[in-house]
Parts: sequence; structure tokens; C-alpha cells
Amino acid sequence: MDSTREVLAAAASRDGLAVEFGDERGGAATYLETGEPLVTGALERFRNEYDAVLKGPVGLPEVRKPDGTEAGVLGGVLRNALDTYANVRPVRLLPGVRDSASPIDYVIVRENTEGLYLSRGSGVRNERAASDQLLMTRVGVERIVRFAFETARARNGAPSDGVRRVTCVDKSNVLRSFAFFRDVFDEIAADYPDVEADHRYTDAAAHDLVADPGHFDVLVTENFVGDMLSDLGAATVGGLGTCPSGNIGERTAYFEPVHGSAPSIAGQDAANPTSQLLTAAMLLDHVGATGTAKRITGAVEAAYADGAVRLNPNGTPTCGTQGVTAAVLSRL
Amino acid sequence: MDSTREVLAAAASRDGLAVEFGDERGGAATYLETGEPLVTGALERFRNEYDAVLKGPVGLPEVRKPDGTEAGVLGGVLRNALDTYANVRPVRLLPGVRDSASPIDYVIVRENTEGLYLSRGSGVRNERAASDQLLMTRVGVERIVRFAFETARARNGAPSDGVRRVTCVDKSNVLRSFAFFRDVFDEIAADYPDVEADHRYTDAAAHDLVADPGHFDVLVTENFVGDMLSDLGAATVGGLGTCPSGNIGERTAYFEPVHGSAPSIAGQDAANPTSQLLTAAMLLDHVGATGTAKRITGAVEAAYADGAVRLNPNGTPTCGTQGVTAAVLSRL
Ligand SMILES: CC(C)[C@H](C(=O)O)[C@@H](O)C(=O)O
Ligand SMILES: CC(C)[C@H](C(=O)O)[C@@H](O)C(=O)O
Repeated sequence: MDSTREVLAAAASRDGLAVEFGDERGGAATYLETGEPLVTGALERFRNEYDAVLKGPVGLPEVRKPDGTEAGVLGGVLRNALDTYANVRPVRLLPGVRDSASPIDYVIVRENTEGLYLSRGSGVRNERAASDQLLMTRVGVERIVRFAFETARARNGAPSDGVRRVTCVDKSNVLRSFAFFRDVFDEIAADYPDVEADHRYTDAAAHDLVADPGHFDVLVTENFVGDMLSDLGAATVGGLGTCPSGNIGERTAYFEPVHGSAPSIAGQDAANPTSQLLTAAMLLDHVGATGTAKRITGAVEAAYADGAVRLNPNGTPTCGTQGVTAAVLSRL
Repeated sequence: MDSTREVLAAAASRDGLAVEFGDERGGAATYLETGEPLVTGALERFRNEYDAVLKGPVGLPEVRKPDGTEAGVLGGVLRNALDTYANVRPVRLLPGVRDSASPIDYVIVRENTEGLYLSRGSGVRNERAASDQLLMTRVGVERIVRFAFETARARNGAPSDGVRRVTCVDKSNVLRSFAFFRDVFDEIAADYPDVEADHRYTDAAAHDLVADPGHFDVLVTENFVGDMLSDLGAATVGGLGTCPSGNIGERTAYFEPVHGSAPSIAGQDAANPTSQLLTAAMLLDHVGATGTAKRITGAVEAAYADGAVRLNPNGTPTCGTQGVTAAVLSRL
């Protein structure tokens, strides 16, 4: 996060853009101190005072609530309280990271407020059994599918065959909730004749994102499935350390790297700040500072393209966190 | 299937093993004719007359029931009616298929009778919403976890670090049903001190199966998650055409390739019979014909190792279905 603030401030000042930072505490440490995962009043300030929110990784796997789920996980709290229904996760292979038969450049649009995660913290559990519910509502599916088609229209990327498409990822062959998702998808798709409406079952999508990633442009899917597919996609482009994300609602948005907090390497100058940097660029783009967003993205790409940044097999940068930061700063 | 019967019969006759085949019809075509996905009496015969069942791919995506789910899908019918609770899916990189930094040789043990799939066909759906339930029972989780640990003890493979392990794949940080799954896993693991008990969140597992497959030995997980992860794993070893599977219960077992029916290439001598051949070997192993099982597996491996079988980028064999069959027959 330090690295990103430095880059963001430098890029903004090149463009004469005034950026004011506020700080709000949240996550596992905050939960341990206060019993709540987010400081009081922060949600209100996110809604009313800030233009957008840049979130760092904040969880600690061992800090758990009595029901066994993790306490410091802010995603559910923020995504539902702010109704940021679209979790936007671009997966893009940066230059020099690895060889690939086709370019990898697609966006996973993950529904963020319902699906299996609606159950978060409200599932049933006793000694003999436990259950969670996967719920799809018409309103929820319609808005995420429209968001996906709008994303396909707006974005610059195109899959290897040059056909703009949205792929609906579902398990409609087995589950009624997913059959519903697919039917609503097909209805909405009719409003976008300029974009190909494509389908993959969840298992086939998991296969094809590995075997044929060049096929994909925009994918739209349920919350839990999107969670898995975006980590899978990240693995094909050098790891979570290169993948940004945005959580977008009608009125509020927050942005965060796809990766978690990696407490085992914290403070060792080992983490790859690329995802957090590209996340800041997504944020800037969202608030209309498109030029500054491009400045950061361009500098990151240049640093990879000319070999200043190289990744170890485990996804950490050979030059360390500060090395990446310096490389990007000098290319802004 | 023709290819497999030929190989199975040839291998058995080398070992003086008498094999009697019975035929039972099922799948999408049967549903269209009879309104049922399986001919009458077949379930009873599977339970009482056959030693084991070898299933071919039988679905047709466009044949759907009124609720939108697929009609010819036999998996749910068989898995629940026969209580074959363990879906065993070995993922192994055959020689010459592709380069890999580490060997890929693990087994996904997918729970086959509950989880999200318990809802199969019984979810709720109206105009405004639809839902399915993810249910874990103590009995269901205990038996699948024990099965996974027993598999780890029995199998020959070992991950690249040589440590025998079972990885529990769950989303216990968010969902109570998965927190339950993980807690039961940890209880059972205590009975197997000779096997490492390992954990991955569902998203991290999707990532690591791509980025670090050499880590894995046996994985155990919920039904729907196992479905996605096994297709993902298949993609890393040259596609579904090389991956066998078994559905194992206390008293009955049936075996099937992981791939579907691929109607677009049916009858074109394009399908890879490897998965069906390795599936037949799993069946033989299960009924105690270990030598004949090894004979088939060995012949398949030899055909890949000496270059007689090569795969196209899309996973089909360059020598066609019959070419693979001939190559395996001549190496039995
Ligand atoms: C930390 C976890 C709850 C979260 C999620 O599953 O949504 C994370 O995996 C993500 O993808 O943002
Ligand atoms: C065809 C389908 C219902 C089935 C499943 O999801 O279980 C298949 O994908 C499989 O993995 O065996």
C-alpha cells in the first residue's frame, strides 16, 4: 500500500491532479481490538465523503469467529453494505511474464452481493449438518449481466478471434438457480446484438481458462464461482500479484488487489505491488482521471516489457517490492 | 466405448480373465424415447448383477427438462441411487504430452452425494428468484474424508517433496457449511498421523493447481467444487481426453471418463479414447484384476512415451481414435 500511495501521488502530481488521502482502519487487527472488522463511521464516510476507496489486504486466517468463519474478512461487509454488486477482475498477461500461445486479456465480472455468498455468516450449523443457500434474484442477475455487456462494449481488449463476447458461466445443466441465471442472461443478451452471447458450464470454464484463454473477452458469473475462476485466471498470468480488481455499485466503488494479506511475507520487501498499482489505476479510471490511470498502467507495462521487473516462479518480483516501485516511478 | 471394449477384451484374454459384458441404455436419447434417463431395471441390475459398471458419455446439452436443467445427465441419478459417495479423479501428466516444471500426479476425491448437488432438481424457482442449497452432513463428510486418507495411504504417487498429504479444499473463511467440512476433516485427520493434513481455500486451490501442481497428492472437497477443480486439473495435463474417474460406494461402483459426450465430434474418429481406457483400468483395479489393469495403463503410457500418440493443442489425438486404439492394442 505504501508503494501504491507513492506512485499514485507522483502520477497525479505529473498531471496536476490533486489527490487527498483519508485513512480508515479495518480487518483482522481491528476486529481483535474492537470486535468489529471496520472502525465506526467508516461505511458512512465511504458512501458520502470519499470519491472512491482503495483497500489493502487485511485478513488473518487464524482470527476466526465462533462459527469458524474468518473474522477480518472485509469483503462481505463492504460489498453488501455499499451494494457494490459488480466485482470486476481483469486478467491480463503482462509483457515478459511467460510464454502463451495466445494473448490473455479478459475481464471476469463476478456478481458480488448474492449467489452462495448471500449466506455468508447466516448458514445453519449444528453437530450433524451445516448448510448455506445459493440464491439468485432476477434484479440481481439482470444488473450484473447488463454490467457485463456494457463492459464488453466499453473495453478495448478483444479475444484472439476479434469477436466481442460475453460468456455466461453457469451449471444450468444441474442446478435450478444456475438455469435461472442463464435464462435471464439470454433475455438481456437480446438487447446487445453487437456482442456475442456465449455459454460455458462452470467446469468447462475452469478447463478452458487454462486450455484456451484466448477465447475469452468478458465472463459473467455467480459470486462463489467468480471467486475461484479469478484466482485460476491469475495463476495463468503470473499469479495474484499482478491482478487488480474493482467493486462497483451505483453510487459507491472500492478497489482492491485480488490477493490476500500474505502475512508470511509481510514486511520482507517480497510482495509484488503490481496488483495494488493496477488497482489504483482502475480507481483513477473509475473517478474520471483516465489520463493518470493510463500513466500508471503504461509505466507498469513498460517496467515489465523492458525487463526491469521479472517474476520468480512463485510470483514474487526478483527486484523486491521496492525495486518494482522504483521501476514504475521512473517510468511514469 | 468401442475402442475400450476392444482393448479391455484383448487385455483380459492375455491374462486368461473372463469378462462378460452386459449393455444398459441411458442418457439423453433414452430420455427422449422413454421420458426416463435410464432403462427400467438397470439400477437393480447395477446393484445386484454386475461386478462393476463402465459408463460412456451420454448427455446432449440441448435436451432439457421443463426447469431448464439437462435431461440426459445420468451422473446425479446413478451417484445418488447407487450411493457411490466417492468420485475419484486421478490427474496425471502422461509422458510427452507437455512440459511441466514438476511432475503432475494427484487424485481429486470429490464428494458425490451431497454438497450443492444435493439440490439437483429440487431447487426453488419462480419468476423473481431461484435457489439451491449446499448441505454437508457429518456422516457424509466423515466418510469422504476417510476415503481420501485411505487413498493417500494406498496409492503409489507422491508429490514432488515426497510428503504424503491430503489437502482439504474449502471456503471455511466465509461459509458455515465449509467451516463444518473443515472441522470434520481436522477431526478425522487426527486418525492418520502418517499423512500430512493440508488446507487450501477453494480459490487458492484453483490457483495452486495451475501454479504449483507438484504440491498435491490427494485433495478432498465438496461436490460442486470438485467438479470444477477436476476439469481444471485435466486442462493442465492435456485435456479431459486423458482423465479417468471412478464413482465408488460401499457396495457398488461405476466408472466413467471425466469428459462429456462431445456430440460435435462424434463418429469422426477424433475423440481421444485415453480417458475411457484408463477408466476401464480403474474398474479392473477395483474388482481385483490388478494385473490386467496395469497391463492397460502400461500400454497407454508406453504409447505416449514412445511418441505413437501425440495430442493436438485442442486435446484430440493426431492419430485419431482408432490410431490410439491400435497403438495401445499393440503394446498390451
Ligand atoms: C477473502 C475472501 C472472503 C474473498 C472472497 O472470497 O470474496 C477473496 O477471496 C476475494 O476474492 O476477494
Ligand atoms: C454432466 C455433469 C452433471 C457432471 C457433473 O457435474 O457432475 C459432469 O460435469 C461430471 O463432472 O461428471
